[in-house]
Amino acid sequence: MSGTTTSALHPRDDRTTASPTGSVRLETRPVIAPVSPRSGALRPLGLDEVRIVGGFWAERQEKNGRATLQHCLDWMTRLGWIANFDRVASGAQFEHAGREFSDSEIYKLLEALAWESARSGDEWAEQTFVDLSARVVAAQQSDGYLNTNFGSAGQQPRYVDLEWGHELYCAGHLIQAAVARARTHGRDSFVDAAIRLADHICDTFGQGKIERVCGHPEIEPALVELSRVTGDARYLDQARLFVSRRGHGTLADIELGAAYFQEDEPVRDAEVLRGHAVRALYLAAGAVDLAVEDDDAGLLSAVRTQWGNTVAKRTYLTGGMGSRHEGEAFGDDFELPSDRAYSETCAGVGSLMLSWRLLLADGDPRYADLMERTLYNVIATSPDQNGTAFFYVNPLRRSLPGLPASLDAPSVRAASSLRAPWFEVSCCPSNVARTIASVAAYVATVSSDGVQLHQFMPAEITTSLPDGEPVRLSVATEYPANGRVEVTVDSDAGREWTLSLRVPHWAEGHAVLTVDGARSVVEGRVASVTRQFAAGDRVTLEIPVEPRITVPDPRIDALRGSVAVELGPLVLCAESTDLREADSLATLAVPIDATLTRIGNDTVELAGSLSTYDESEWPYGPEHLARTTDNDTVTLIPYHRWAERGPSTMRVWLPVRH
Amino acid sequence: MSGTTTSALHPRDDRTTASPTGSVRLETRPVIAPVSPRSGALRPLGLDEVRIVGGFWAERQEKNGRATLQHCLDWMTRLGWIANFDRVASGAQFEHAGREFSDSEIYKLLEALAWESARSGDEWAEQTFVDLSARVVAAQQSDGYLNTNFGSAGQQPRYVDLEWGHELYCAGHLIQAAVARARTHGRDSFVDAAIRLADHICDTFGQGKIERVCGHPEIEPALVELSRVTGDARYLDQARLFVSRRGHGTLADIELGAAYFQEDEPVRDAEVLRGHAVRALYLAAGAVDLAVEDDDAGLLSAVRTQWGNTVAKRTYLTGGMGSRHEGEAFGDDFELPSDRAYSETCAGVGSLMLSWRLLLADGDPRYADLMERTLYNVIATSPDQNGTAFFYVNPLRRSLPGLPASLDAPSVRAASSLRAPWFEVSCCPSNVARTIASVAAYVATVSSDGVQLHQFMPAEITTSLPDGEPVRLSVATEYPANGRVEVTVDSDAGREWTLSLRVPHWAEGHAVLTVDGARSVVEGRVASVTRQFAAGDRVTLEIPVEPRITVPDPRIDALRGSVAVELGPLVLCAESTDLREADSLATLAVPIDATLTRIGNDTVELAGSLSTYDESEWPYGPEHLARTTDNDTVTLIPYHRWAERGPSTMRVWLPVRH
Repeated sequence: MSGTTTSALHPRDDRTTASPTGSVRLETRPVIAPVSPRSGALRPLGLDEVRIVGGFWAERQEKNGRATLQHCLDWMTRLGWIANFDRVASGAQFEHAGREFSDSEIYKLLEALAWESARSGDEWAEQTFVDLSARVVAAQQSDGYLNTNFGSAGQQPRYVDLEWGHELYCAGHLIQAAVARARTHGRDSFVDAAIRLADHICDTFGQGKIERVCGHPEIEPALVELSRVTGDARYLDQARLFVSRRGHGTLADIELGAAYFQEDEPVRDAEVLRGHAVRALYLAAGAVDLAVEDDDAGLLSAVRTQWGNTVAKRTYLTGGMGSRHEGEAFGDDFELPSDRAYSETCAGVGSLMLSWRLLLADGDPRYADLMERTLYNVIATSPDQNGTAFFYVNPLRRSLPGLPASLDAPSVRAASSLRAPWFEVSCCPSNVARTIASVAAYVATVSSDGVQLHQFMPAEITTSLPDGEPVRLSVATEYPANGRVEVTVDSDAGREWTLSLRVPHWAEGHAVLTVDGARSVVEGRVASVTRQFAAGDRVTLEIPVEPRITVPDPRIDALRGSVAVELGPLVLCAESTDLREADSLATLAVPIDATLTRIGNDTVELAGSLSTYDESEWPYGPEHLARTTDNDTVTLIPYHRWAERGPSTMRVWLPVRH
Repeated sequence: MSGTTTSALHPRDDRTTASPTGSVRLETRPVIAPVSPRSGALRPLGLDEVRIVGGFWAERQEKNGRATLQHCLDWMTRLGWIANFDRVASGAQFEHAGREFSDSEIYKLLEALAWESARSGDEWAEQTFVDLSARVVAAQQSDGYLNTNFGSAGQQPRYVDLEWGHELYCAGHLIQAAVARARTHGRDSFVDAAIRLADHICDTFGQGKIERVCGHPEIEPALVELSRVTGDARYLDQARLFVSRRGHGTLADIELGAAYFQEDEPVRDAEVLRGHAVRALYLAAGAVDLAVEDDDAGLLSAVRTQWGNTVAKRTYLTGGMGSRHEGEAFGDDFELPSDRAYSETCAGVGSLMLSWRLLLADGDPRYADLMERTLYNVIATSPDQNGTAFFYVNPLRRSLPGLPASLDAPSVRAASSLRAPWFEVSCCPSNVARTIASVAAYVATVSSDGVQLHQFMPAEITTSLPDGEPVRLSVATEYPANGRVEVTVDSDAGREWTLSLRVPHWAEGHAVLTVDGARSVVEGRVASVTRQFAAGDRVTLEIPVEPRITVPDPRIDALRGSVAVELGPLVLCAESTDLREADSLATLAVPIDATLTRIGNDTVELAGSLSTYDESEWPYGPEHLARTTDNDTVTLIPYHRWAERGPSTMRVWLPVRH
């Protein structure tokens, strides 16, 4: 990847026309990023346009590229998930290793490798992509079908179990990996294989064919993205069929209920996300992709409403989504228990996918707010400090210290004591890997007005506005440890344009913008400077990163009478490791007038007092007496750093004593 | 059944010795009741010794005998669950109707019919038992095996799926039905079939044979009870094997974890109930049965500890158990969400089974307290006023009014909007039926000291103390509407004995005992009068049944900042049907100094005020403002009566406004 390539918002006529497989011509000027819509308020920047040069996310990208990708490859090799492809290629009868969706893990790893190769130019990543994708391609059937769990000798036939088989889900992830490959590298045999697979799906699930959907959405955004890459409207048409079929009962009834796979209601009619959280979020992401390509304002509006209601009533403080272990599902409004929060890491990924698409479509900083929250408190929480163990679920309270996960065998996914190297259902590690490898894509956008900075990290941005006006910027910041964000313009502008910086919702009315030494408090949610910039111009935004007390909506039963402490975008928590008595978190109560003192980059000391309760034979009675100890301090650390020091208990929400 | 038969605590030597099938001699003086231990603090009374003659439970018994039993029979007939037996008997290959454990429903219905026939002398119940049991017996294999889902032509072989197959679980329920039949009727072909099945199980699962357990406990108490009925120690030995094997990993790993079927820890080592609630409770009940027969103080003590910790930390105000939908399981300590309470009706039945056994063993009134709570707030809640629709789960809050259940098709079990006629997994209706038909067995006990009254209802008691001293009592009361309980002694005593009445824990220190016109406040948990009673002697206990505010243990996240209102043994709730605005329950808040006024037998008016909250885009912030309306009243009805008036929202725990 050369850092000098530039891209522009490609108008429809810049694309190839539909053409039969074999003669496909890809986008000539792709945006090297996960999402590249035809239109919208903002245009995304590619990994060649935004380079993260230090700080919180550079460290995580380094760890991801160095450790996580190899780790995923090793486990998938060891468990035989990759060899499944070799066995299908050989034509021999075999026992499929892993769950029915194991192929998708290889595809998400391929996608991560593609982004990583583009991001860092790492040769291992590139060579591993080539080798691994060749093994995948070798397993493709002559008609384009590709799945190691169905359709081969001794296996179930294709498409007999759309509810649980995950065939189109796996295909969607293959296509997403191919989209990443096409955008970062151009056409190769893997991209061709994805096109053959997509053609097969259109042949098989088109109008008048199998008029059903897959139990797990993912093919929908994948097909739209493939249509963006290839310019082939056929894939868009097929995505439209899948999105519009959903909610019309084409899948069989299951005990978890039709909402589990969003079959309870058409996408266009729903007012909130429900059912299996990852499924719901992937589907909504695909619906936004489709709405944008189709100029379908009604569909876009429906998903926008769903996002709003979900964020207002069904989202954790961390940005985590999915409050039920049962069905890995969204709960009812305000059903947000801390201890049983599912908050699957993959739902965090899905939330980023959805919010990013809505941000591109609408430009509303609320979407970037939720992305920031989710990045720091869900995505950053999943991998451990070595990048080789992961949380699958991300509860906001842990009441019992569990045991360390097995280092040798896959763990049960919902284990939430310590991070585990691998899971029987191991969707999260590779999903985190592809997200972190491509996180630079979420930093900034352009529009005809100028450049928008959504996420704050040390970065070099080299791009051009839609009219070709070149722009170069450097961002220097220690965020989130420090709220000072310095943007230096590195190029002389040929015309006036606007530099916009998001003001996080918790800083509204308190952020200070400095331009040419003139300080002003920012009103509203965006700090902006419009001028004909000259090289060396500097714009500084100061976002107050101070510990603050957060109170929950009184409708949330599980949080009533509790408060949380946040520090900038970081949700903090108390971990038993930092307490004198390992078990005292159970009865920790914070005085309503507790004082908060910052004691490090990301750590806060709360001055309060512990209390203990009398044990009772029956936990309901006329009164319960608390005995309060002397004033004491409690150390609060970022939620994303918990459980790094052995088994512990933890809580984000601290009961308040009046 | 003749009401004149009397029973006595049968010493070991009163039993038959072990004998081969065919020459079995049953107990000569059975206690006509579900549990008949060899020893213990208290001896149970049979349905021939205690007759309920009116009031709350007489009404429910009437409804149960008149409507519920026929209802269960109709659904099982219609769904083909009974015809499964005919098809096995015919030897033809067939597709099994219903889930793998459908046989157990027929057995629980048979048990209910047996108790009902004994209780009421109802001819339909007797004839239905005879007809239905004959169809079951016809399906028995020549070696004693009996299950319609395994081992026949075209089916899986026997015992290949002990984790999920429920074969021994079903066998346990067959044996329990046969125990009921033996005690209420004596030996017949069904009892003989049960003995052959038990022999087959001993042959198959004995030492050196298949040394494993069933995924769902139930065979354990059944075999102990069968050994009590037959005097055959072989069944007791086999129960001992099953109880001692549990917790040693003889079942395969499952994603829900080994605790799901109590395989995480030996029964003797566990300190609290965990995993699937019904499984845990049935196993604990069987362990008490075994401990009592074996004089195994260590095992009894272990279960006693488990009960205590479970009641103190893992039980709902209603007595309901099981706080997780996932795995239908107990949660961690103090994990007791209202909205997602599973509190399965069958776990209520299991809790009664366990508490009753511990009460007989120990005599501690705490066990009877929990039974009362569970009877009025779980068991009485499940069936509707017609006895033909049921709750499977019993949450303490319902946030969204759901739709009425289908009248034509089985409902999903966890639906909790309105009661449903039948479920795909329909364990609860027949379990409630057998419990209500035999509820007289839980009213009173005897010991060498005298008679103990545990539950208060209009009843006639005709029994004798262990030394043969005859006792006749009448109980008159309007409990729970009124706390006055009048006991009249109807026989002249030949010696001094003690009449004991339980004082519910919530009335401790406030109950008044009147004997010969002398009133005294009862100290402690038992009101007792010792004398040589004469016919006409009257003892009156006045239990204060006034509405009271109940506060939750501060360790329960889900209940912090809320209170409940109780009225005697009844847990009350607010139902949207009684509010002016159907949706206002979501934001109902009660002032800390709310006043409670009784406005009927079981209804209370709370004078308080409603409040509304501003809608917010993000539910966590520096503050949330409540707008308070004028003073208002809220009607509170018994939890067991909710959802009888169409779809509604409901909450037991009401947030408090300070």
